[in-house]
This record gives sequence, C-alpha cells and structure tokens, in this order.
Amino acid sequence: MATGICRPEDISKWEREVDVIVVGLGAAGAAVALEASAAGAETLVLERAGGGGGTSALSGGVLYLGGGTALQKACGFEDSQEEMFKYLLATVGEAPDEEKLRLYCEQSCEHYDWLVAQGVPFNPVFYYGCSGEPPTTDGLVWSGSERSYPYCEIAKPAPRGHVPARENVAGPLLMQKLCEAVDASPAEVATNHRCVELVQEADGLVVGVVAQTLGERRAFRARRGVVLTTGGFILEDRMLDKYMPFVKGVHLRVAADGDDGSGIRLGIAAGASTSHMDKASISLPVTQPWGLKRGILVNARGQRFVDESCYYGDVGEAALYHNDGHAWLIVDDEIFEQPEYPPREVSAVGESPAELERELGLPEGSLEATLALYNRHAESKSDPVFHKTEEYVQPIVNPPFGAFDCNVESSLYAAFTLGGLECDIDGRILDPEGNAIAGLYGAGRATSALSTGGYSSGLSLGDGTFFGRRAGRAAAAG
Amino acid sequence: MATGICRPEDISKWEREVDVIVVGLGAAGAAVALEASAAGAETLVLERAGGGGGTSALSGGVLYLGGGTALQKACGFEDSQEEMFKYLLATVGEAPDEEKLRLYCEQSCEHYDWLVAQGVPFNPVFYYGCSGEPPTTDGLVWSGSERSYPYCEIAKPAPRGHVPARENVAGPLLMQKLCEAVDASPAEVATNHRCVELVQEADGLVVGVVAQTLGERRAFRARRGVVLTTGGFILEDRMLDKYMPFVKGVHLRVAADGDDGSGIRLGIAAGASTSHMDKASISLPVTQPWGLKRGILVNARGQRFVDESCYYGDVGEAALYHNDGHAWLIVDDEIFEQPEYPPREVSAVGESPAELERELGLPEGSLEATLALYNRHAESKSDPVFHKTEEYVQPIVNPPFGAFDCNVESSLYAAFTLGGLECDIDGRILDPEGNAIAGLYGAGRATSALSTGGYSSGLSLGDGTFFGRRAGRAAAAG
Repeated sequence: MATGICRPEDISKWEREVDVIVVGLGAAGAAVALEASAAGAETLVLERAGGGGGTSALSGGVLYLGGGTALQKACGFEDSQEEMFKYLLATVGEAPDEEKLRLYCEQSCEHYDWLVAQGVPFNPVFYYGCSGEPPTTDGLVWSGSERSYPYCEIAKPAPRGHVPARENVAGPLLMQKLCEAVDASPAEVATNHRCVELVQEADGLVVGVVAQTLGERRAFRARRGVVLTTGGFILEDRMLDKYMPFVKGVHLRVAADGDDGSGIRLGIAAGASTSHMDKASISLPVTQPWGLKRGILVNARGQRFVDESCYYGDVGEAALYHNDGHAWLIVDDEIFEQPEYPPREVSAVGESPAELERELGLPEGSLEATLALYNRHAESKSDPVFHKTEEYVQPIVNPPFGAFDCNVESSLYAAFTLGGLECDIDGRILDPEGNAIAGLYGAGRATSALSTGGYSSGLSLGDGTFFGRRAGRAAAAG
Repeated sequence: MATGICRPEDISKWEREVDVIVVGLGAAGAAVALEASAAGAETLVLERAGGGGGTSALSGGVLYLGGGTALQKACGFEDSQEEMFKYLLATVGEAPDEEKLRLYCEQSCEHYDWLVAQGVPFNPVFYYGCSGEPPTTDGLVWSGSERSYPYCEIAKPAPRGHVPARENVAGPLLMQKLCEAVDASPAEVATNHRCVELVQEADGLVVGVVAQTLGERRAFRARRGVVLTTGGFILEDRMLDKYMPFVKGVHLRVAADGDDGSGIRLGIAAGASTSHMDKASISLPVTQPWGLKRGILVNARGQRFVDESCYYGDVGEAALYHNDGHAWLIVDDEIFEQPEYPPREVSAVGESPAELERELGLPEGSLEATLALYNRHAESKSDPVFHKTEEYVQPIVNPPFGAFDCNVESSLYAAFTLGGLECDIDGRILDPEGNAIAGLYGAGRATSALSTGGYSSGLSLGDGTFFGRRAGRAAAAG
C-alpha cells in the first residue's frame, strides 16, 4: 500500500483508544476538538509542535464573517446573508462549492457568537484604511474587494473582516483564547506528537494513527474518526513543484513549521482526492497606506494589469499569476509616500515618464503610452480600462515620477496554499468518485474549502473554524 | 477503501491470468503492449471502445522527436540531443522533470527508428507554414516555438514535428499502423472491456483489474503488472471543476470517448499522487496561414499580450489563462485573409483604429494607443514589447482595419489535459512520498510526463509512446 498507511494487524500495542483523534492544533483543530468533546466524544488532539497555535497563531487573526453579525451591527454596518453570499460567490474563484458557501453565509452570525463564547474578544470599533488586520485593537475592517468593480455592483459592500482585539497581528490572541477553551474542555492535547501514518483497515475504514514522539512510534486508536487539521503545504518544495512551482519564488511563506503538507499526503495515500492544489493566496501589500492606490501598477511591458484599488490579494494574484511577478507601482510627487509595511525600495525616479521608463528598462514608449491613456481618462475621474474606484483616480502628472519595486525576486509578496483534501460539508474526506473514506475527516488548510482560487482576508481562519466545528460534530457522531 | 478498489478475496472467479494487463489501446497502450510482449510477457490489452485508437487516432498524428533523426537528416536539417533538450527544458513548463526530458532527447532517434520499424511511414519532405500537422503527406514540420524569442536564443532551432504520411490529420494512420503491429505481436486485445476496478492486495500490491463487458463484470489477474494508459480527463466536467474549470468553456475538447479520467481516478483510489492536473494544451489556431502572424492580438483592454509569431499553443495559453479568453486578431487590409482552419468570424471592421475600437467596445483610446506603439517600432522592423519574429513585423496602417474573433465563447480553441498520475522514468506509478505502488504502471495522458504546462505539438504522442515502451518493459520484468 502507499507510504503512510498501515494496517491494524501491524500495530502490536495501542497507546490509547479514544472516540475522536484530531491531528494538529491550529484554529481548525481547536474548533474540531471543542465541538467533538462538547458532543460527548472522548477527544484527543495530537500536535507535532511543543504547543498549540500552528499557522493561525502567526496570522493576522482576521476572520471573514458577515450577514449582520453583532460586531457589524455594533459598528453601524448593515449586511445580509444574501449580499455576503453574492460577494463570495463572485470572488472565491471558479467552480465554487455553492453548498458550502451558502451554509457559511447562513450561519456566519452564529459562528461569530460561538467565537465570542469561546472567549475571543472583538472591539466594536471600525478601522478604515487597511486590507486586513489593523495596527490597532479595532475589531472590524474591509478585508476584500467588496468596494471594487465589478463586486460593488454584484453585492452591496460591507466590511466583514472580524479581528480579535490585539494590535498589529491578532492571530496570537485568537489562538491563545481557542487553546484556553480547548484546555478548559474535556478534550485532551498531546503535544510533540507528529502523526506519520494512518491506520486503515483492509476495507478502507480509518481506525487510528501512528505518531512519533521523542523518536518513538505510538499508535492511537479512534473508535469514531480521525480528523486531519494539519495545515497547508507552502513549506514543502516537492509539493510546490508538482502543484504550483511559481510560488517558490515568493519571499514570505505564511506558515508555521508544520505546513509541509504531511496530512494532505496521508490523505492521498489513503485514497483521497484533492482539489485546487494549484491555488494560493498571494498578497502584494504595496497599496498600504491606501493613498498609494492612486498610483498605477505596470508590468515588464509597461502595461497596466489590475485595478490598483482592489484587495492586495487580488493585486498579488494578478502580478504573480499573470505577469510573472514583474511589476512596479508608478507614482508622482503628489502621490509618493513610503509604504507602511513592508518598506519598499524605489526602483527608479525620473523627471518625465520617458526618463522613468528608460531607468526601468521598459520598452521605449510603453510607459509613456500607458500613462497618457490613464491620465486622459483620469482627468474626468474615470478609468474605463480597469474601473479603479473613483476615489483613487487622479492624473499622475507631477514630476518627479517614481517606481516602487514590486518584483517577486526583490520585494515582498506573501503566500499560503488554498488547496487540499476534498471534503463534504461535514468534513468527510472524499475519494475520487466523491464517496466518503470511512472514519476520515478534515478541516482547515489541509482541505479545500471555500476558496477555489480567489481570496479575501479571513476566509481561511473563517472556514477552518466553521467547517472544523462541523467535522468535529460529524466525527463525534461516528 | 476508496471506490474503484477491490481485494483479491472479493474475486470469486478470474476470467484470465496473464503477465501484464494494459488498460487502453491508444498510442501509449500500443507501445506498452508491443514492448511487454516483445520482452516475453504474456500481455492482454483491455480497451473500452469497440476498437483500438483512442484519442491518438483522431489527433494530428505529430510526434515531437529530434536530436538528428533519420527524417530530419533526410530533410536537410541539423539537430542535436543537446539543442533539443535546451529547447524543451525552456518550454515544457515550470519545474520540469529533467531526467525524463534528458532520456527522451537522448533516445529520440532510436525511438523514431522504432516507430518506422512498427510500420509507421514518414515522407522525407519538409513542409513550411503550419504549427502542427500539414495538409499534405509531408513528414516534417515546425511544431513549437523554436524560432520565437527567447527560445531561438536559448537553443538552435530545428523542426521536430514528425508526421506520418497522411493528408490533413495523420493520427488515424499512426494508430492503424500501431494497432496492426499489436495484432501481429503475441499481445492479445479484448475490446469492449471497460476497466472499472483495480484489484489490490491488503499490502498494496496491484494484482489485476475488474472490467465490465456487455453488462458483466470480469476479473483479470496480472502476475507482473497493470499498466494504465487510459488517456486524460478533458471530457469529465467534475474533474475539470476541481482542477481547471476555465477549460470548460473551450469549444473543441480534443478527445475520443474515453478521456473521462477513469484511469486517473482508479490510480488515485489506489493511493497514487497526481501532478500538473491544472495544466492543459490550449490551442488558438488563428495565425494560420502564417501571414496572419503580421496582425496583433489584443485583449478586452485593447492591450497586446503575446508574441503573435509563436506556436499557436502558446498563443492559446496566453489568451485563455491570462486574458480570460477574450481576444481579437487585429489586421489591416494588406494582412487580411481568411484563416484556413477553422474559418473565423470577423468581429468588426473600421476605417480607422478609433472606429474599430468603438465597434469592438474597447476602452476609448486603448486600441489606438496599442497600434500607435506597435507601428512606431514596426517601422524599423522591431518589436521591443513582445519580440515578434522580424519576418512578421510590419506596420498595420492600411484601412480598412479588421478584427478576427478570438473569444473563447464564440470561436475555436482546442484543449486537452496534460496532468495525471505521477510516474518514474519506467512508468511506475508513485504514491505521495515518491515510492512506487507495486504492480501499477502508467503512460500517456493518464500520467504527467514531459509537459508540466508548456506544450509543443507532438509531445503527447511522443512521450506516450516513448515512456509507454519503457513501462511495458518494466512491467514485463515485474
């Protein structure tokens, strides 16, 4: 059989026997453990690191929620399940799973309340001006392209980035609270246990795992189910080579130590199907502060390629997927200011577009033509080519002109993987014909869930916890 | 266990027992059967259709071969393994398998001789002017982007499209000859046998298949190996949704009835890893006759996006992957002629670029700016933006101007899938840790082989037959 699978008859001694085994204690694993144990299942979490948290604990902590949550209301914003659904349906990527999306939108308010009940604090204050976690402890932000064309015409915009009350990055607080909740629950946690094999009966039923701890192999039996919440694979170059080699050049791989795809590979070895393994969230955070959205992004041919006012994840995908990660943000003297984070190199400065173009090594006349066309329409606050939000449309005419480096080799992009094991709405891991592999569940970035390519900040922690809860309940029911 | 797998103990009666079972009789399956039986293995081919041929029999029949084949020499062209390797390494896509590529180039001349020895006829005549199979019975064509920038600087160009001697499409002749060779070999063929399950022992060894014929299930035991040569999955929308939904809109899916991914799904169910499932060959055959390469392709923003002189597969990928399949070929009165195949609609005509732009609904000034920049450089026969081959660079200035429809919704693109089961150089199918699944082999488009995204005509028949032969020998050795 495939590497990573063993049979019950190969196990000489079971270290423990419980109802539900959860592999990995990030946000998804915590949600699984909380709901499985709340449903009365004896639950054991095996975490390979010395403590819980995973990638969730180093993330910005944003959760994409909406439909009129208590936080949205407290901040004075109206939203509805339907508008949230329409936005997500239009932005999460091609061939989205409508059933999962609808469920997620319908129960988003309840899910927010559940997070609060676990002790996660949110300040009822709206923060304007960033595309993800704010520098403050404010609780609500824009975290997608809701106000950009064409989405603003498809769905009524509302800010849906829900951020725990911690400055700069809120992931540590989110995971502190969720891990405290797990500690207070009947679920047990064994750290420094790295799952290396699934125990599968000859008829396909998954009945346990083998974990390595301190160089020793230990077998754990699960009466009702094993849930894989092991994270993505952005740290595993062999998998990136197979599924998305272009991401290997990205400087910031958003990942804790465990995002090496081990759980995904165990699922594949057990006969599971994967999907969207070629998809990643790619952020190019060059348009913060937002005043920089008044610049234009050009590629190596001197052409614009994206609405600069949209979410920085959409900007990053356009730059990396479709323009080989070669781009510059062109500004003039009026627009120029140093980006907040990360600081960004100025690649070139010129007294005229022609001089800037020469300095950048762009084809003769290319940047001049692009700026001329942009400025011609910007005079009347319009952008018929990319439909930039009017607020950021102004002619770029005041010398000197400058170009911020947005090349993937020399500037900061941030990436994590979105694809993984295929699951149904209750986290049951599926084989290539769409049938469940008995006893095997998954949630979080070990699985493919809401995003099939497109992204808004907070979708990953959002679907990981939301579908993690459902997987926990399903596994507990056995 | 996953759907599509059964255990030997589930089989009440074995219909037959042989050494090697080959699933599918396209070009790859024929190559497997010929070599396995030549190596002395009792070989049985199960083909789901009423006769052999598969997608290979409706293809253009081009095989990408080189390094100084007898045919290249007879046509007066010099080539070397090293130049062929450099070209392929640069064009087959990101993270290519260098070992497979090198082997393919080193043994390409021998492989050509083998095809001739099987009875496949090639006329030693070079045909100039198409990017794949010629309308004549001529034997050698350009079938990639060898002469385009930057490949012409990376490797010395040589035509490597080897075409069996049949007018228009040579696939039927290729498969007629290969099937005749199989018939003349000791290998047996059972048609109307559709493989629905793999028989796998509890320890993972694949020992046979279950096939359906006339509504009846029959089990076939393989002493040494089962080889999956079942083709790609371009006909299976459920798989396209998972791996490449954007291809669903393509009008021409290049496929015989069997390209529904069934063999790939069986391999996944057995614990195999897949790679490059998001990759397809996408042809946009608008630049034939080649005089039309003097036009420029623009997207929905009125921007150029590709070197129009390159291989029509590169044009198609640029249009569909990176420009949402929205494009027009802009020509003037001097360049205009009706494309040979397929005939193509003229979307709009205008006495000036501005009028044509309005008729096409492009942003005001966009096409005008693009044409102005192109013409400015074309005056001096240069194209610093896309490096079009000089022979096709001329100003587009003679009214009326016209636009050929190259939109995916309304014009012809052609697609087939390139990804599949992962194999080593001898066709052994691999699990996610890179270890072979004992008894299971594959070749052709059921597997991922030379192309990891980029394509040149003839690579698929080329690697299918080349690695099919290796898989046949490996399976025969057991």
